[in-house]
Amino acid sequence: MSTRITIFDTTLRDGEQSPGCSMNPAEKVKLARQIERLGADVIEAGFPIASAGEVDAVKAVAQEIRSAKVAALARAKEADIKAAGKALAGAARPLIHTFLATSAIHLKYKLKVTAEEALKQAVDGVKLARSLAPEVEFSAEDASRTDYAYLLEVLQAVYEAGASVLNVPDTVGYSLPQEYAEMVAKLVRDIPGAIISVHCHNDLGLAVANSLAAVQAGARQVECTINGIGERAGNTALEEVAMALKVKSATLGAVETGIKAELLAPTSAMLAGITGIWPQPNKAIVGRNAFAHEAGIHQHGILANPLCYEIMTPASVGVRETSLVLGKHSGKHAVESRLLALGLAPKAEELEDITAKVKALADQKKFVYDDDLLNLVQHTPEHRTRLIRYQILAGNQVLPTATVEVEVDGQRRTASAVGNGPLDSALEAADKALGLDLELLEMQTRALTGGKDAIAEVIVRVRHEGVESSGQAASPDTIEATLKAYLSAVAVARAALVAA
Amino acid sequence: MSTRITIFDTTLRDGEQSPGCSMNPAEKVKLARQIERLGADVIEAGFPIASAGEVDAVKAVAQEIRSAKVAALARAKEADIKAAGKALAGAARPLIHTFLATSAIHLKYKLKVTAEEALKQAVDGVKLARSLAPEVEFSAEDASRTDYAYLLEVLQAVYEAGASVLNVPDTVGYSLPQEYAEMVAKLVRDIPGAIISVHCHNDLGLAVANSLAAVQAGARQVECTINGIGERAGNTALEEVAMALKVKSATLGAVETGIKAELLAPTSAMLAGITGIWPQPNKAIVGRNAFAHEAGIHQHGILANPLCYEIMTPASVGVRETSLVLGKHSGKHAVESRLLALGLAPKAEELEDITAKVKALADQKKFVYDDDLLNLVQHTPEHRTRLIRYQILAGNQVLPTATVEVEVDGQRRTASAVGNGPLDSALEAADKALGLDLELLEMQTRALTGGKDAIAEVIVRVRHEGVESSGQAASPDTIEATLKAYLSAVAVARAALVAA
Repeated sequence: MSTRITIFDTTLRDGEQSPGCSMNPAEKVKLARQIERLGADVIEAGFPIASAGEVDAVKAVAQEIRSAKVAALARAKEADIKAAGKALAGAARPLIHTFLATSAIHLKYKLKVTAEEALKQAVDGVKLARSLAPEVEFSAEDASRTDYAYLLEVLQAVYEAGASVLNVPDTVGYSLPQEYAEMVAKLVRDIPGAIISVHCHNDLGLAVANSLAAVQAGARQVECTINGIGERAGNTALEEVAMALKVKSATLGAVETGIKAELLAPTSAMLAGITGIWPQPNKAIVGRNAFAHEAGIHQHGILANPLCYEIMTPASVGVRETSLVLGKHSGKHAVESRLLALGLAPKAEELEDITAKVKALADQKKFVYDDDLLNLVQHTPEHRTRLIRYQILAGNQVLPTATVEVEVDGQRRTASAVGNGPLDSALEAADKALGLDLELLEMQTRALTGGKDAIAEVIVRVRHEGVESSGQAASPDTIEATLKAYLSAVAVARAALVAA
Repeated sequence: MSTRITIFDTTLRDGEQSPGCSMNPAEKVKLARQIERLGADVIEAGFPIASAGEVDAVKAVAQEIRSAKVAALARAKEADIKAAGKALAGAARPLIHTFLATSAIHLKYKLKVTAEEALKQAVDGVKLARSLAPEVEFSAEDASRTDYAYLLEVLQAVYEAGASVLNVPDTVGYSLPQEYAEMVAKLVRDIPGAIISVHCHNDLGLAVANSLAAVQAGARQVECTINGIGERAGNTALEEVAMALKVKSATLGAVETGIKAELLAPTSAMLAGITGIWPQPNKAIVGRNAFAHEAGIHQHGILANPLCYEIMTPASVGVRETSLVLGKHSGKHAVESRLLALGLAPKAEELEDITAKVKALADQKKFVYDDDLLNLVQHTPEHRTRLIRYQILAGNQVLPTATVEVEVDGQRRTASAVGNGPLDSALEAADKALGLDLELLEMQTRALTGGKDAIAEVIVRVRHEGVESSGQAASPDTIEATLKAYLSAVAVARAALVAA
């Protein structure tokens, strides 16, 4: 019989406090629905006292979410708790999450109260919260820097006052796993019946390790965020802790969560799409390269047996096609897989030759894009989609207008369009020339070199008749790079439709 | 008396195997110099057998680096080891790093050899390496999934054959800290005299935790990379493990490293500049937000006493001015600090009013940029630098040409320029109109909304007369956003020069 660990998602609250991650009520509702589908047990929707917009957001999430619990944050103050209770009025399963700092440094410098006053404030807060909601969680802010005797006294008192979940945040991200686990083990022993919850920050890169050590020590709830967003270095990443609990379940004490792993990558992408902040390529589980093997040795091992290097499959966490840019470490397999995606099936002897050319080109110019790859291959113009030329007139006092000429299956077609900016007009013109209705899902740009005339690399992901595909290109002209990447993605989608 | 932990940096080898992170010899030398200044003890420069370019890179690094050791990787094969020895010929302190997988799954599926054959191959490899270099490290690839008795047998044998450093990689990133530490503790006990080294991957977000647990168990060398780059989810991040070892030195057994913490952020930025891959904003230690506090509560705590929320200061890891975009969580302090940077010193009563306006605007449009902020403030046109209008003609068969009109200190100036692409021509025209010679250090773009007509947010960092500054702006027109961000950065630099 497995022990169920509660996943408390605070992407919409602690995550949203991350600079650049603000969300409006509609965005919070969209993401909350996805987090509920993902299988989180509790969704913390916001901090109602903060602003009128926060109240609206929490209300909207509370009304929408029916199976997961919806939590709202409140300091242990009457106004905060009443605002939280009010915002949660429409929730099917409301939970008020109230907190107060307990460490000596916070009591002295931030709250300017005595330990006795703080204890009373915490208990009064929990009692008020319990009168407004069936379930209350109390967080002892900066718990990991709090004297244990005092921490126990406060948590014991709020537990008796009606808080069923006792959360002990590592607020400054300062704990080591064994230190944090020791505190949790003592609380589990000293307050039987309470659910001990953990909330870690990643300032030293230890948030996941601290959460896992706490679960082994008896914690039964983990607070976390999608992509690990949150103030400073962020919170425990939901996708990492959920997969670690799954993959290492036996060692961690036969634990399980309700997370549907195959929804991790889509949920990560939805958050990134809303905030515009994408996880770095090597972010565990959800980064673009999390399952990418460029080195020849590893590719060979993977082909021999995926277990040589992969502890979980990309599909198990919902990762679909990844658009690997080819480089000097790329082997035959990587070259073949990109050619197949582009709708070309090279023969074995051709492949050797193309791979050698790719490596030589990569030594010269670092990366080999779809465009370069197609130039290395003898291929028929069928199913080919490429940019011939483009021109653009833009400015903040003219109507941005672009003309694009493309070649599709051997035919040249031209179209012009007006847009909101130079890029928008160029992509609209490309759509018109192609005669297709394409949805742009994602676009990422990076500078490959320094300075104002840097070479831009653009990766785009599009949806065409239900097929998602990606393409990449590079140019000192960002608009040209974007158009080429866009047309590559279209070529891949069309090849997939022909194959299907 | 502290125990010195050796930092083995493999940014140029394992890090470089990360898709998109390839470096040419000149880039490797530039970064190696910086990593030596940073205080790494060993710099792994590459894998000479991989390609002619790799040989050149390792040779160039070996000739340049005088105080740190320079390592080259080689499978336990004659050709590999000879290539490594040759590439290291010019090194002051060469080290050959040879490896062979030891786990049953790798022996069976990848190497297709028996345990006895692998043992012999490892010993022969180390002997050959020892004949070519004064110091040899042996790595048992996939050590954490290797049967302990066999692992010990191999490591004991290669130690006796002359490998002084025995590295036990968690190749698939599958270990939990306690499991990994247990293996390390047994090896420390069973092979007295050897230096046990650890090399972790971050597939479950545990690379730093595993490395620290291993150090507590007696490991004396940690292998890591700047920004944690590396295949899949990457390697142990140097900056995280170095700061954890420093901040938690006492708990971890009075350990120390030679890392100069104040060079961590500049080294991270140099790598990002070379590869074009920037750490995500909430990356621990070196992310743009690692020290950013947006929520009002935290800002209040920080002002009361930085120890409330910060376990290390931004300056201690070399972080300079950060350009925080203002949002609904931003308080008075954040608004004031950006206004001061822009050269405006608001009075206390004005500040209250401006902050309220910022919050109201942020509820409407999420983010408040320099441009918006200046519009909220009554300010004299002195020291003001802003975009009036611009127009551009570009395409891949025309000469990209831009005309820009700016207002500088109340005067309007216009200039035109030709560039490599629309963006380059726009920035060149802005420089001409300003009459300044500016260096563009960094430019990051993200889409704030979805679709082809997404609003682009641009953050740029420039250097002007030795002063580095940053600016930000947003627009559906990427070129307009870039010009506005660029001019904001210029305004900040000019304000700093006036103040100095």
